[in-house]
Amino acid sequence: MTVNRQALLKSRPHGLVTTDNFEFVDAPLAEPGEGEFRVKIEAISIDPAMRGWMAEGKSYIPPVGIGEVMRAGAAGHVEASNNPKFKVGDAVSGMFGVQQYVISNGAMVSKLDESQASLERWIAGLGMPGLTAYFGLLNVGEPKEGDTVLVSAASGAVGSVVGQIAKLKGCRAVGIAGGPEKCKYVVEELGFDACVDYKAGNLYRDLREACPKGVDVLFENVGGEIFDTELALMNVFGRVVLCGLISAYNATEMPDGLNNIRSVLVNRLKMQGIIVFDFIKEYPQAISDLGKWHAEGKLKLREDIRDGGVDAFPDVLNLLFNGGNNGKLVLKV
Amino acid sequence: MTVNRQALLKSRPHGLVTTDNFEFVDAPLAEPGEGEFRVKIEAISIDPAMRGWMAEGKSYIPPVGIGEVMRAGAAGHVEASNNPKFKVGDAVSGMFGVQQYVISNGAMVSKLDESQASLERWIAGLGMPGLTAYFGLLNVGEPKEGDTVLVSAASGAVGSVVGQIAKLKGCRAVGIAGGPEKCKYVVEELGFDACVDYKAGNLYRDLREACPKGVDVLFENVGGEIFDTELALMNVFGRVVLCGLISAYNATEMPDGLNNIRSVLVNRLKMQGIIVFDFIKEYPQAISDLGKWHAEGKLKLREDIRDGGVDAFPDVLNLLFNGGNNGKLVLKV
Repeated sequence: MTVNRQALLKSRPHGLVTTDNFEFVDAPLAEPGEGEFRVKIEAISIDPAMRGWMAEGKSYIPPVGIGEVMRAGAAGHVEASNNPKFKVGDAVSGMFGVQQYVISNGAMVSKLDESQASLERWIAGLGMPGLTAYFGLLNVGEPKEGDTVLVSAASGAVGSVVGQIAKLKGCRAVGIAGGPEKCKYVVEELGFDACVDYKAGNLYRDLREACPKGVDVLFENVGGEIFDTELALMNVFGRVVLCGLISAYNATEMPDGLNNIRSVLVNRLKMQGIIVFDFIKEYPQAISDLGKWHAEGKLKLREDIRDGGVDAFPDVLNLLFNGGNNGKLVLKV
Repeated sequence: MTVNRQALLKSRPHGLVTTDNFEFVDAPLAEPGEGEFRVKIEAISIDPAMRGWMAEGKSYIPPVGIGEVMRAGAAGHVEASNNPKFKVGDAVSGMFGVQQYVISNGAMVSKLDESQASLERWIAGLGMPGLTAYFGLLNVGEPKEGDTVLVSAASGAVGSVVGQIAKLKGCRAVGIAGGPEKCKYVVEELGFDACVDYKAGNLYRDLREACPKGVDVLFENVGGEIFDTELALMNVFGRVVLCGLISAYNATEMPDGLNNIRSVLVNRLKMQGIIVFDFIKEYPQAISDLGKWHAEGKLKLREDIRDGGVDAFPDVLNLLFNGGNNGKLVLKV
């Protein structure tokens, strides 16, 4: 008899998550009912947004309830099925949660073609983070050929794809990342035109040098001081894609506010929030484009795959917030 | 022989402007050259944006230079002309400056029909502030019938027009103003559905009550804490028209930053800055609409006309920042 190891949210974290915020249980392995199938989960996507899903309060999606399996995008193989559309052996992805197995009726589940990319990649650059980059940049940022596109967290799962799509669209892509190693990766491997190390202590000066014509499209993942500094470089009629504010996700006190909102006024910027789920009807076109670029070698992706299974979830999640990951973070189950 | 009294910017103000920031001079009265005409200025528009025009640094328009006549929109009559398009006696408006007379070649000068409205009104609700309200609300805010439109500084020159246009478009118009008298004016005379007194000390609670369905369009003139509070009430896919940040215009230290930028992300708001000069090609349609609504009695306007001439400019300007005005502020020359 097999059990299903699960990470249940036990308490709402204050600051960084700890193991104590979760209860790890061995639930009995459930059998699929009529029209259902069971997935053996092999890879769990670890995303900054997960921190927000644990917090109380109004957001774009209800918080994970106390005692519930932690929400997560994940991928695996069907191992038992009463659903004719999903056969044993099919590779699939969906919001399966931080656990070893899930029962699904197929709603919001995608089939994955493993001849094109690995399971890990399908929940990374070709999954939610890649789609977020795609819709955020193209639908909200509206980049035009010759524009300068600035991306914070440029070595991250979303930022790395944003810059590469910007290059495909004929833009100058400039990244911001933490440390010389990440910056080197962003320029030499991902093909950005420049990358500024925010840890070097001269962010404004270095950004001015990297963006001699100013910034037309800002793709913001970080918030805080970095965001304020970027706003000072925006060109008239620029677009700001507000995708993430990761610097504040674990704040236990109110962080400093945004000081440079005046730039939105005087430069007539358009700032817009993006949540990928709003574009669900356009996913097929986006997945087709991303897959094509990937197959042509124009979209380079890197996963940082961690072992440890369900129980390692809190520690692996925290890597996102201390800069400890190197590529899209995926937890192996 | 007549002289031309002028207010020249002598030094850049720190905080509120003072009389010492200006030099008041009696320049010789100039004669119009070929193609030029002379306007006797009778009414000067006093606007919050003027404070920004005195400050150094990059903005949407170069700052007024030290020693130059203070920039201002104004209206008056042509009293001498070598330009066949502008005849003696014509009523005109333009960026004439804080002075008694101006020589113009007619560029960017509008003729005014005094049978429709007074000179003062033509530089108020039917002039730049009215146009700002019109383009900000309609082009940026994109109000739909049934939307709740929230306007800060609702009794001001721009805000008062925003709410009335919102009503004309079938929206619920809610204002924010300082003190019960202004709030009463906004509701009873301008026809807003509700107006919240931010001085009463319960802004969030009072706004929730006034906007039971949340806020779809926010027209922001103030900034600071008021802006943060409004952002907490925004509906998903709401629009934020960033028109002014008057609470910060005289700040001598960095004011508190905007704390609630997260609302832009989670609610997928579109926030956009508006400067009326960007819409100059569409002015004729807007002036025609505003004039029609005014003639039909659907657009109520109130000017607060102050005497004192050119020398009173600094004191009259400061009325905008201490809430001392009651209607669109105009300085009689």
